[in-house]
Amino acid sequence: MNRKNFEKVFPFWPELTGKQQEEIINSATVNICEKKTRLHFGGGECAGVQIIVAGRTRVFITSPGGGDITLFRLIEGDVSILSAACMLNGLDIELDMEMETDTELYTIPKQVYKKLYDESPAVKDYTLEMISEKFSDIMWLFNQFVFSNVASRIAGALLEHRGLDGSDELKITHEEIARDAGTAREVVTRILKQFQTDGLVGLGRGKVTVLDAAGLGRI
Amino acid sequence: MNRKNFEKVFPFWPELTGKQQEEIINSATVNICEKKTRLHFGGGECAGVQIIVAGRTRVFITSPGGGDITLFRLIEGDVSILSAACMLNGLDIELDMEMETDTELYTIPKQVYKKLYDESPAVKDYTLEMISEKFSDIMWLFNQFVFSNVASRIAGALLEHRGLDGSDELKITHEEIARDAGTAREVVTRILKQFQTDGLVGLGRGKVTVLDAAGLGRI
Repeated sequence: MNRKNFEKVFPFWPELTGKQQEEIINSATVNICEKKTRLHFGGGECAGVQIIVAGRTRVFITSPGGGDITLFRLIEGDVSILSAACMLNGLDIELDMEMETDTELYTIPKQVYKKLYDESPAVKDYTLEMISEKFSDIMWLFNQFVFSNVASRIAGALLEHRGLDGSDELKITHEEIARDAGTAREVVTRILKQFQTDGLVGLGRGKVTVLDAAGLGRI
Repeated sequence: MNRKNFEKVFPFWPELTGKQQEEIINSATVNICEKKTRLHFGGGECAGVQIIVAGRTRVFITSPGGGDITLFRLIEGDVSILSAACMLNGLDIELDMEMETDTELYTIPKQVYKKLYDESPAVKDYTLEMISEKFSDIMWLFNQFVFSNVASRIAGALLEHRGLDGSDELKITHEEIARDAGTAREVVTRILKQFQTDGLVGLGRGKVTVLDAAGLGRI
């Protein structure tokens, strides 16, 4: 457990007493989750506040039918406040998390975080701000879903992966794109073919090559 | 301005000092907004915390193309915390509000509420809880939109109006149902005809009569 990781991610760290800092450091657990590990939060069950120390994870919602839709990703240095949702009055949401790479997580137990939350106005402010940010992100996504068409969501998903991978050559299946864009695999296949015809992407086995990022951005 | 209205809606009221209570009472404004009045919140512009003293209002998001989708309704005794969104760090959302009846609103100016928020842990807790509730509601709605089909959303919208009006006979246009269900008017018309064939509703000029609420609930 590295104190530096807490200092780096929590803006309220300097406002805590030495005792409070020790409480966090001593109670937090380290987990190395293998790629594809899944966690579920909701219905009164949650882990606590999590810090992504290394790796990448996808947070999503699932349908009763088994489909799923990506809400956002967390990368190194991100704090997952919704992993502690059950700790917060009024916050009643169901979420899943899946590690997209082997991921190192610190977890602050919910009782420990709740105590700090009750003791420290700075922790309260931080918590409200983090919840507000996620609320805003999801409102934005909601807008995208209800008002923007599937082609632009697929273009957006391709550009997001291009940013994450730092490469034009994306090792990604149509299934994965479908989950990010909240549509069916068949729809992705059809629209990618259209993008190929338009010279926006090149298609290969298990990969999509972005040929015209600016063009995708305009969709 | 009636002190009772504040006592009734704010669980933190007894925890405020007399001076803080006076600040709220003296700074709040009363507005009678006529039916169809619209307010917009977002982009750094907001009103403050609002209390619906009488009437009914609809909160929704709009598309660049002019469509809109109902997020929730507020009725007598409800507090609209998102009317003060611009006051909260990290909360960056665009919302519209439309009065569905003549509506009496109390508005607590954002500076006054922000001061109380900074002074009182009880006000902080209340604010986080209210934001969390709205976040949860919207997550639920998001789930409905992405995973449930249009017919069940229309059935849900009809049952909601039945609850609001306390009657099986709903004076409502296909246009209004379309906004609540987030779809096009033509789709509503087609599905309502299907519902009529199935004996779930009766259709008349500018009204829909719920004949089988349990049947609608099962969709």
